[in-house]
Amino acid sequence: MRVEVINIGSELLFNKINTNVNLISKILISSGLKISKCTIVGDKKEEIKESFEESFKKSDLIIVTGGLGPTFDDVTRESVAEVLNRKLLFDEKIWEGIKEKFKKRNILEVPEINKRQAYIIEGSKIIENKNGTAPGMLIEENGKIILLLPGPPNELEVMLEEGLNYIKEKLKKTKLITKIFSIIGIPESEVETKLKDSIEKLKENLIILAHPNLIEIVLTLPETEEDIFYEFEVKMKNTFGINYLGVNVPSIPELIGELLKTKKLKLAIAESCSGGLACKLITDIPGSSEYFMGGFVTYSNILKKKILKVPKTILRKYGAVSEETAIYMAKNAKKYGKADISLSFTGIAGPTGGTPEKPVGLVWIGVCSKKNLYAKKFIFTGDRKTIRERAVYKGFELLREEILKDEGKD
Amino acid sequence: MRVEVINIGSELLFNKINTNVNLISKILISSGLKISKCTIVGDKKEEIKESFEESFKKSDLIIVTGGLGPTFDDVTRESVAEVLNRKLLFDEKIWEGIKEKFKKRNILEVPEINKRQAYIIEGSKIIENKNGTAPGMLIEENGKIILLLPGPPNELEVMLEEGLNYIKEKLKKTKLITKIFSIIGIPESEVETKLKDSIEKLKENLIILAHPNLIEIVLTLPETEEDIFYEFEVKMKNTFGINYLGVNVPSIPELIGELLKTKKLKLAIAESCSGGLACKLITDIPGSSEYFMGGFVTYSNILKKKILKVPKTILRKYGAVSEETAIYMAKNAKKYGKADISLSFTGIAGPTGGTPEKPVGLVWIGVCSKKNLYAKKFIFTGDRKTIRERAVYKGFELLREEILKDEGKD
Repeated sequence: MRVEVINIGSELLFNKINTNVNLISKILISSGLKISKCTIVGDKKEEIKESFEESFKKSDLIIVTGGLGPTFDDVTRESVAEVLNRKLLFDEKIWEGIKEKFKKRNILEVPEINKRQAYIIEGSKIIENKNGTAPGMLIEENGKIILLLPGPPNELEVMLEEGLNYIKEKLKKTKLITKIFSIIGIPESEVETKLKDSIEKLKENLIILAHPNLIEIVLTLPETEEDIFYEFEVKMKNTFGINYLGVNVPSIPELIGELLKTKKLKLAIAESCSGGLACKLITDIPGSSEYFMGGFVTYSNILKKKILKVPKTILRKYGAVSEETAIYMAKNAKKYGKADISLSFTGIAGPTGGTPEKPVGLVWIGVCSKKNLYAKKFIFTGDRKTIRERAVYKGFELLREEILKDEGKD
Repeated sequence: MRVEVINIGSELLFNKINTNVNLISKILISSGLKISKCTIVGDKKEEIKESFEESFKKSDLIIVTGGLGPTFDDVTRESVAEVLNRKLLFDEKIWEGIKEKFKKRNILEVPEINKRQAYIIEGSKIIENKNGTAPGMLIEENGKIILLLPGPPNELEVMLEEGLNYIKEKLKKTKLITKIFSIIGIPESEVETKLKDSIEKLKENLIILAHPNLIEIVLTLPETEEDIFYEFEVKMKNTFGINYLGVNVPSIPELIGELLKTKKLKLAIAESCSGGLACKLITDIPGSSEYFMGGFVTYSNILKKKILKVPKTILRKYGAVSEETAIYMAKNAKKYGKADISLSFTGIAGPTGGTPEKPVGLVWIGVCSKKNLYAKKFIFTGDRKTIRERAVYKGFELLREEILKDEGKD
């Protein structure tokens, strides 16, 4: 099945558009599909029509995202309808739904302009939009499938998955299976060197994705090749030991949540340089209240003293970015957070604030459990965002190891 | 001048490719150029030829990146040469340069395969590659310009700038200026309704972008049209008053940082349902330690009681998600956070935990300043992630208004 993606949006703000291409690519991979070509065009009707016509000619699945908003420059509906020679029909039910959504936001008078979003391409199946007002559409024509989806990533993600679900039967014909193998705490180049022979052999079917502190190897094979999957998994286990997380594992914060639940442990986090990122990632997971007590974002030294009771003498003697401070932060986050295990971060995220002794990128990560209390020093490279992400994911790696060591609650 | 970009690389590693699209877009904007269309294709010769032919037909500047490496799947040189009907010529000087680069890396025997990189399209101007081995090429044909550049971002960046430098004279003719106008707290459709006439008039030059709780209007005009920019700005001020943030303003967290610095105020945040997201966004900004004291991620009720001293009776009588709790959280975040102004969030982010009285999406946002203490009720729609984002950005909107009311520190 040949897949093309057309991304409609601003010619200028490619940032937003790229989030979408990544997202779509990831979701398609997990359905065993590859993107053959991706086109990014502005909100001009002629451009959209031309790009869509090209993709429609050559591909079996065409995903068009963006340009379904209410405003004048949202012309995806019209463009696709014109190419397919279908009418745009006003859908009373969708209009009622849109009005309902505005009512929930306490806007009683829905702008007339939003009526544009209630127009549906004749004969299309509607994909409901739970996170916004623009409905998605699934159109079949000449055995080909067209998915029209809105641009905002949070709307797009759910709706693309739902759209793919509708065409599950068609996808089955391609009989590809994708498995994702995850490795934590080992750099990409080392993973590549250690897997050299397998990578060479499976070149056409394999992708390596590098995230902060996590490597994902995406292997796509025909379903008849179960043996190769099995061999590859054995190889991964033998090569990476405890750093190998498994096949199709959930995200690191989810994984930690599962472990904490299994061991019946409660978590608390103390953050300085990471400024809430670790707490945010842990609470991204639904149901995290089951194991997450809370966090102390002691960004200023005053709060390190007042809230986390890091002794003034420690701060004066060793500084906020030190082994001693990280240890106090972890210890007291556990104590005052009423938790069984805790994590702390204190460092210099940059871009300024570094010194020759304590450079930008220096982060002390503390861990406190029933049996252990320690802090480890790291120097991360990259910009502020990258340093913060790398620090937090490194902390999660230490946390995971510590939870695995724990025998659980008595 | 119409510009198209063709990005050649793996069909799957969109992560890497997107970095390039962002980079190219950024460099072009600073030269007053817009990308009209961007195509991402894999390393297949037929695909590359077809995409290049299309772009060449329609555009004045065609930037082709990637596929200039030494390996068998790098076929950009051949593909472009075939479409232009030009020869590939071996360039002895480039080959010597490649050998020199390997020598510097202490590799004396240069792989024969690298000879491919010394082949140059007939009649092209060479763009030197200081960070890698693949040279870039600038080709003029029929008054159009083609830039072939390598894929790695660090090579691409410098070479694109050099390439644009060669065609400076041509670029001067179409100098464009882009300004971004931001509006907070007003839905996209209302913005459009209120700006109907201006939008109609500037349709070709204007894009509207919707973010959570923020609308950006991107206006691109020839530099000779300063008057239109000025008129549009006056119109924005008059139409949206306090909701109009200004031209080319920084992000909301940056804006809040600037305001806090100006008024010499310190901020503290108490978070329940938002779980650290507000703190994370505030501390994304370099230098936020100047005005951000810290945050209390009191995710569990125990910590709401123990850390933020929300009275047991309040939690029992009104529940954690209530006006009273939000007010206590804000008040005590200010007090224990040693701050001048504070914000609190308590709500139900979902997907579970909702009741008919307190549905998923219900969030109480509390604000405490020297003169004010209140909480406001909101019902946000969307999934967990969307609800959390909308709540935090709505909180930032209330915070901004409160800071603007403040007369600053005595």
